[in-house]
Amino acid sequence: MNASEFRRRGKEMVDYVANYLEGIESRLVYPDVEPGYLRPLIPSSAPEEPETYEDIIGDIERIIMPGVTHWNSPYFFAYFPTANSYPSMLADMLCGAISCIGFSWAASPACTELETVMLDWLGKMLRLPDAFLAGNAGMGGGVIQGSASEATLVALLAARTKVIRRLQAASPELTQAAIMEKLVAYASDQAHSSVERAGLIGGVRMKLIPSDSNFAMRASALREALERDKAAGLIPFFVVATLGTTNCCSFDSLLEVGPICNQEEMWLHIDAAYAGSAFICPEFRHLLDGVEFADSFNFNPHKWLLVNFDCSAMWVKQRTDLIGAFKLDPVYLKHGHQDSGLITDYRHWQIPLGRRFRSLKMWFVFRMYGIKGLQAHIRKHVQLAHEFESLVRQDPRFEICMEVTLGLVCFRLKGSNQLNETLLKRINSARKIHLVPCHLRDKFVLRFRICSRQVESDHVQQAWQHIRQLASSVLRLERA
Amino acid sequence: MNASEFRRRGKEMVDYVANYLEGIESRLVYPDVEPGYLRPLIPSSAPEEPETYEDIIGDIERIIMPGVTHWNSPYFFAYFPTANSYPSMLADMLCGAISCIGFSWAASPACTELETVMLDWLGKMLRLPDAFLAGNAGMGGGVIQGSASEATLVALLAARTKVIRRLQAASPELTQAAIMEKLVAYASDQAHSSVERAGLIGGVRMKLIPSDSNFAMRASALREALERDKAAGLIPFFVVATLGTTNCCSFDSLLEVGPICNQEEMWLHIDAAYAGSAFICPEFRHLLDGVEFADSFNFNPHKWLLVNFDCSAMWVKQRTDLIGAFKLDPVYLKHGHQDSGLITDYRHWQIPLGRRFRSLKMWFVFRMYGIKGLQAHIRKHVQLAHEFESLVRQDPRFEICMEVTLGLVCFRLKGSNQLNETLLKRINSARKIHLVPCHLRDKFVLRFRICSRQVESDHVQQAWQHIRQLASSVLRLERA
Repeated sequence: MNASEFRRRGKEMVDYVANYLEGIESRLVYPDVEPGYLRPLIPSSAPEEPETYEDIIGDIERIIMPGVTHWNSPYFFAYFPTANSYPSMLADMLCGAISCIGFSWAASPACTELETVMLDWLGKMLRLPDAFLAGNAGMGGGVIQGSASEATLVALLAARTKVIRRLQAASPELTQAAIMEKLVAYASDQAHSSVERAGLIGGVRMKLIPSDSNFAMRASALREALERDKAAGLIPFFVVATLGTTNCCSFDSLLEVGPICNQEEMWLHIDAAYAGSAFICPEFRHLLDGVEFADSFNFNPHKWLLVNFDCSAMWVKQRTDLIGAFKLDPVYLKHGHQDSGLITDYRHWQIPLGRRFRSLKMWFVFRMYGIKGLQAHIRKHVQLAHEFESLVRQDPRFEICMEVTLGLVCFRLKGSNQLNETLLKRINSARKIHLVPCHLRDKFVLRFRICSRQVESDHVQQAWQHIRQLASSVLRLERA
Repeated sequence: MNASEFRRRGKEMVDYVANYLEGIESRLVYPDVEPGYLRPLIPSSAPEEPETYEDIIGDIERIIMPGVTHWNSPYFFAYFPTANSYPSMLADMLCGAISCIGFSWAASPACTELETVMLDWLGKMLRLPDAFLAGNAGMGGGVIQGSASEATLVALLAARTKVIRRLQAASPELTQAAIMEKLVAYASDQAHSSVERAGLIGGVRMKLIPSDSNFAMRASALREALERDKAAGLIPFFVVATLGTTNCCSFDSLLEVGPICNQEEMWLHIDAAYAGSAFICPEFRHLLDGVEFADSFNFNPHKWLLVNFDCSAMWVKQRTDLIGAFKLDPVYLKHGHQDSGLITDYRHWQIPLGRRFRSLKMWFVFRMYGIKGLQAHIRKHVQLAHEFESLVRQDPRFEICMEVTLGLVCFRLKGSNQLNETLLKRINSARKIHLVPCHLRDKFVLRFRICSRQVESDHVQQAWQHIRQLASSVLRLERA
C-alpha cells in the first residue's frame, strides 16, 4: 500500500469510524458469540500473497464486529468508562505516523517535553501541590504510564529500593533479601486486584486493611496493623490509598492515612484510577484533600477524561526516587545531554523501554474541549448517575448499597444474592444493556456505571425500565 | 467535535500523515533543539475554553515537528527500526474507534480471539514448534506484550513462581524469601539492559555470563557459572538467551545453552526483539534452531515486521505457568465462561490489566503484505546492510567490527576510541544522518542500522559518502 492508496483508504476508514460511533446504539452492546467463535471464520495461517483491501475491510463486519463488546455504546454500564473522543483519535493518527520511540530525551525531544508539560497542565487542572509539578526546576513531575497497574508497581518498586537503601545505609551488613523478607505493604481490602498483584510481582508482603462501614481505609485499622507488624519485627514501607474504588467508588481517608505514612516513613501512593478525572471540578476537588501527604499519585485520563487508552497519568514528588529504582545506562542509549541535569529520560520512570508519543492525545483533547468542556463531561456523568439513583430509590423492591459520589450506582434487589445473580444473568443475556457485579462484604451487588461519552438521560431511563421489567419477571418466578 | 467535524478533520489528518511520510526525507532527521525548547512555546496551563482546530494543527509544524527525531526517515540509522506501515495505521484507527479494553474474553471476545489466532499465524510464519501454538487445544500460545522488557519480566516472574512452588512442594518449611535469596538468573554480558532490569524488579540475582569472541553466550561459560553458583548453595532458575543483541546483533548459542537449561530445570527465555522478524525467511530460520529447548520466546513485530508500536509477540509452552504467576480474580472481572477451560483471559498473561485491540494491526499487515511481502521487506534491509558493509570494507581507513548477519553494521575508524567518538559527534551534529554507538569490549564502535521502510540503496550510498567526508576531516584534524 503506497501513500496514495492510504489517502483513499484512510478517508474511507475515517468515515467507517464516524459511522461506527454514530450508529453504535443500534448494535448489540454485548456480543452473542461463544468461546472459539472466531477461529473457524478465518484461515489457519497467514496468506503467502497479499490480499485486497476490500477482502480485509469486508471481514470487519463479518468477523470482528459480531465479537466486540461495545464499550462506547450508551447501553454499556459495565466495568468503568473507556475514554473515546474524536480529538484523541486524530492525535493518535499523528502519533502513529511519527511513530518515534521516546525512551530518552534525544530519541525524540518533543515526545518527552510535551509529556512533561502536559502532565503539568493536568496537575494544575487537579490543583495538585506544586511539589508534584516539574515546572522549570522542580524535583517532581509527571509521566504517562500504560495503566494504573503499572503506576502502582512502579511506585512500589521505588519505595522498595528507597527503604532498602535507607536500611542498608544504617546497617551495611543487611542483605537485600533479609530486608525484603520483612517488608510489608498495605492497602484497603477494597483496593483493586492490581495492588495485590504489585506486591506479588515485587516479592513483598501486601496486607489488606479491613475497610470501615463506608468501605474506606481509616487510621485506626491501619494503625492496628502497623503496630502488630512492627511488634513482629516487620518493616512497613508502602501504603496504597484508593480514591474511588472499583467495587463501589469508596474513598480511603487520605487525611487520616496520610500523616501516619509520613510519620512512619512509609511511601504513600494514591490510586485514583477512575475518580481522578473528577477532581478537575472544584466541587469534587475536596475528595483529593490529603494528596499533599503522598509520594506518588496516579489516575487514568483514559478512563474518564476523553483521552483514548492508553494514558495513565502518574506524578511523583521526587523524581530521583523513581529513577534510582531502575536506572541502567547502556552506551547505545546514552546521549550528549543526559548529564546536564536539564533533561528527562522517561525510560527510567517506567517498566518498558519503548513508549509512544501519547501526550499528543492529551494536548489535542485539552485544547479542543477546554477545561470547561471536560468539566461538563464529568458533571453530566455524575448527574446521570444521580438520576439513575433516584429512579432506583423510587422502587421499594430495590436498595442503594453505597452513597453515590460520582458516576457509579451500586444497587440490588432487596433479597438474596441468588435473586440478584439471577437478575444480572437475565440482564446480560438480554444484551440490551451490559452490567457487571461486585461483592460488598457478603452481598452480591449490581454496579451501574455511567460510561459512554454518548450516554443521555433517555438511555438511563430505558435501562432502568428494562431492569425493572426483568426484575418483575425474576420476582414472579421466585414466588412461583 | 462531532462526527461530521471528525469526518472533515480526519480526512485532513490522513493527508497530513501521507504528506509527512512522503516528504520525510526533506526534514532534518535529528532535531536542532536544546533541552527545554518546548515549554516556552506553549501556555503554562490548559485553556479554560475550547480552542479551534486550526490553532492546534498549526502548532504541529511550529512546535512539535522541530523537536521530533524522525525515526522513519531514510536517513535514520540509529537504535533499531520502528515499524511503520499504512495497513498498520489503518488498523490502529479502527482500534481507537472500538477502544475496548480487552482484559478478559468477555470484555471483548474478538479482541482476545483474534490475538490468539494472529499469534498462531505468526508462530507458523517463524516455524515455531507446535508446543508454542494455541491451536484448538494447545497448552501453549501467544500474547501481545507492550515491549520486550515486559516479556522478559513476565517470563522471569513466571519462572520465579514456578521454582518457588517446586521447592516448597518438596520442602514446605521453606519461605518464599529464603528461596528468593538463593535464586540466580543468567544472561549474556551482551543482553539488553532490560534483562538486568527484570532481575532488579523481580528482586533476584542476575549474573551476566562473559560472551565469547563472537559476543555469544556459550555452554562452557554458562556451565562454569552454574557449577560455581550451585557449589555456593545458590539456585539457578532462569536463563535469557538473546538472538540478535542490541550492541552488535550477535546470537547466543541456543543449541548449546538450551539442553543445559532443560537438564538443570532452568526456565529458558529467548529475547529476539529485533532479529525475530527475520526468521520468517527460510534462509535466516536456522538462527532460531534450538528454540525447542525454550519455555518462552519473544520478538517485536513493532521493530521490523511493519506492525506499528506497540506489538511485542510472546509465546509460552505452558500457559498455566504464566497464569499461575499472576492470577487474581475479583468479582467485577469474573464472567460466565471463565471456568469452562475454553477461554483465554489475557490479563493473567501480562503486567497491566488493560489492553488495546492490537491484533488488528497484525491482521491488516499480514494480509495486505502477505508473507512474501514481509519477507521482501526483511531481505531488502539485509541486502542494504551488506551493501554498506562492502562500502566500508573498500575503505582501508575503516574496519568492520562484527560479522554482518542481518540489518546492522558495526564499524569504526582504525584508531583510537577518541577518534571514533569525534567522528560520531560530527555525524550527529551535521544532522544529515543519525547513528548511535556501542561498546564492544573496550572499543567504541559506530552502529549503522538499516531502519526505515523507505530506505533505498541511494540513501545508503549518500550516508556512506557523508561519513567518509567527515572521517577525512576528522583524520586531517588529528594529523594537524
